[in-house]
Amino acid sequence: MSAIVWLNGRLLDIADAHIAPNDRGFLLSDGLFETIRVANGQTPHLARHLARLEEGCAILRLPSPDRTLLTQAISDLLHATNLSDGSLRLTVTRGTGPRGLVPPATPHPTVLIQGTASTMSVPAPVRLGLSRYRRDGASPLARVKSLACLLSVMSRMEAVAAELDDALLLGTTGAVAEASAANILFLREGRLQTPLIADGALPGTSRARLLDGGFCMEGRLLPQDIKTVTGAWLVNALSLTAVSGIDSHDLSLHAELDRRLRAFLFSA
Amino acid sequence: MSAIVWLNGRLLDIADAHIAPNDRGFLLSDGLFETIRVANGQTPHLARHLARLEEGCAILRLPSPDRTLLTQAISDLLHATNLSDGSLRLTVTRGTGPRGLVPPATPHPTVLIQGTASTMSVPAPVRLGLSRYRRDGASPLARVKSLACLLSVMSRMEAVAAELDDALLLGTTGAVAEASAANILFLREGRLQTPLIADGALPGTSRARLLDGGFCMEGRLLPQDIKTVTGAWLVNALSLTAVSGIDSHDLSLHAELDRRLRAFLFSA
Repeated sequence: MSAIVWLNGRLLDIADAHIAPNDRGFLLSDGLFETIRVANGQTPHLARHLARLEEGCAILRLPSPDRTLLTQAISDLLHATNLSDGSLRLTVTRGTGPRGLVPPATPHPTVLIQGTASTMSVPAPVRLGLSRYRRDGASPLARVKSLACLLSVMSRMEAVAAELDDALLLGTTGAVAEASAANILFLREGRLQTPLIADGALPGTSRARLLDGGFCMEGRLLPQDIKTVTGAWLVNALSLTAVSGIDSHDLSLHAELDRRLRAFLFSA
Repeated sequence: MSAIVWLNGRLLDIADAHIAPNDRGFLLSDGLFETIRVANGQTPHLARHLARLEEGCAILRLPSPDRTLLTQAISDLLHATNLSDGSLRLTVTRGTGPRGLVPPATPHPTVLIQGTASTMSVPAPVRLGLSRYRRDGASPLARVKSLACLLSVMSRMEAVAAELDDALLLGTTGAVAEASAANILFLREGRLQTPLIADGALPGTSRARLLDGGFCMEGRLLPQDIKTVTGAWLVNALSLTAVSGIDSHDLSLHAELDRRLRAFLFSA
């Protein structure tokens, strides 16, 4: 795969793809993104991603890029790069603007699509630690996969610095929200659950598919109840990862359930 | 003033100044900034800005750019642009990186400095409305003027859409935090106060100067106590703006106090 990206209607070598210094995505995190799985040259759940992008744009009061245009752009990029397996990142910003917070009356969004090749494999189980960073599930932005994700960056960096694999963030409600870049599934009393949006979980596409498919239900997990959890997984659009422990609490691996979840999520 | 910016050691026309599509500032809001007043071709409070930038870099676990280099860069930009009065925006990001949250082991920060000319004038009083967006004062990031400021963008956009001038944000503690791009000073029982950092106020440079100068004290303001406030100002590095009202509560203008605050903050 070559380093070609799609930027505002053009396929460009990444060295020739320029973001303006006064792009509001760069200066103000004024935008949002999607991370989309590519399998066998296809994007099997693109419609869910584009729907979530449109919902996010509505919350950001940003005109949503045309779905047909995005679909064609993704197809063009996959062909130009021969990307068969991996992921795409689709970034949309409010474009350039003058100094300050107030956007131009008629913004011209920046749209960037980047591909990364990777092979689908079963990741090694990960160990999580409770983070001091919290997500505010009451914020309208908690539902948006926005560019303002520095909190996720910092929680991951601090987990890695503590020799953990990832951070488990609480919401401002005090309940478990999600990991730095994935939703969490937890097994408790034989039932698979995933935190509530109100507790700060991002409405992830794989999370939504699992809920729609009846594989799990929404449920609140308080930190003091983590000791009652017997298994857990991190899930996002690209992967399902078993959790081997949360701080000092060890978790069992559940091979059969893991296999079923993985087959449902990623066999198509 | 020409559209020249300073980017990573070079003075460039803005059209030739390119941010890479994989800059973590653009993709992940992984960086921070300062807005610095320029008066008579000087930056009178640069040391405070550089100190806050360094504190922010420490919280972000980002090597802080060299102070001497930044000071020289600012001087070079002021000369190249003949900028006499206005502001500079200094942006520092963690630079480019591979896909995902984890930064490269040795990041190469992106440093961008942009100037904007403007004349110092007394802004017209503004009307504020309580925002539905909240700042989490308990977050380590609440102390950082980070690129993750979409919440500020949205609160301002919603205030403007409601025909107000600006938004007044609460902290997750429920107390008043700040406006979308300024600290607030409020006059209550004859005393000038400004919200606590713990309630979500950014440690603004003008706020710090006023506290150091004995002009105001820190104090908590709950929404139900707004009706006891008799006057208020928004203050940031560039301006002091009287507040004429907060939602339906009208405020008096206090010409003598306004004059004294303005003289202290901006006469030098």
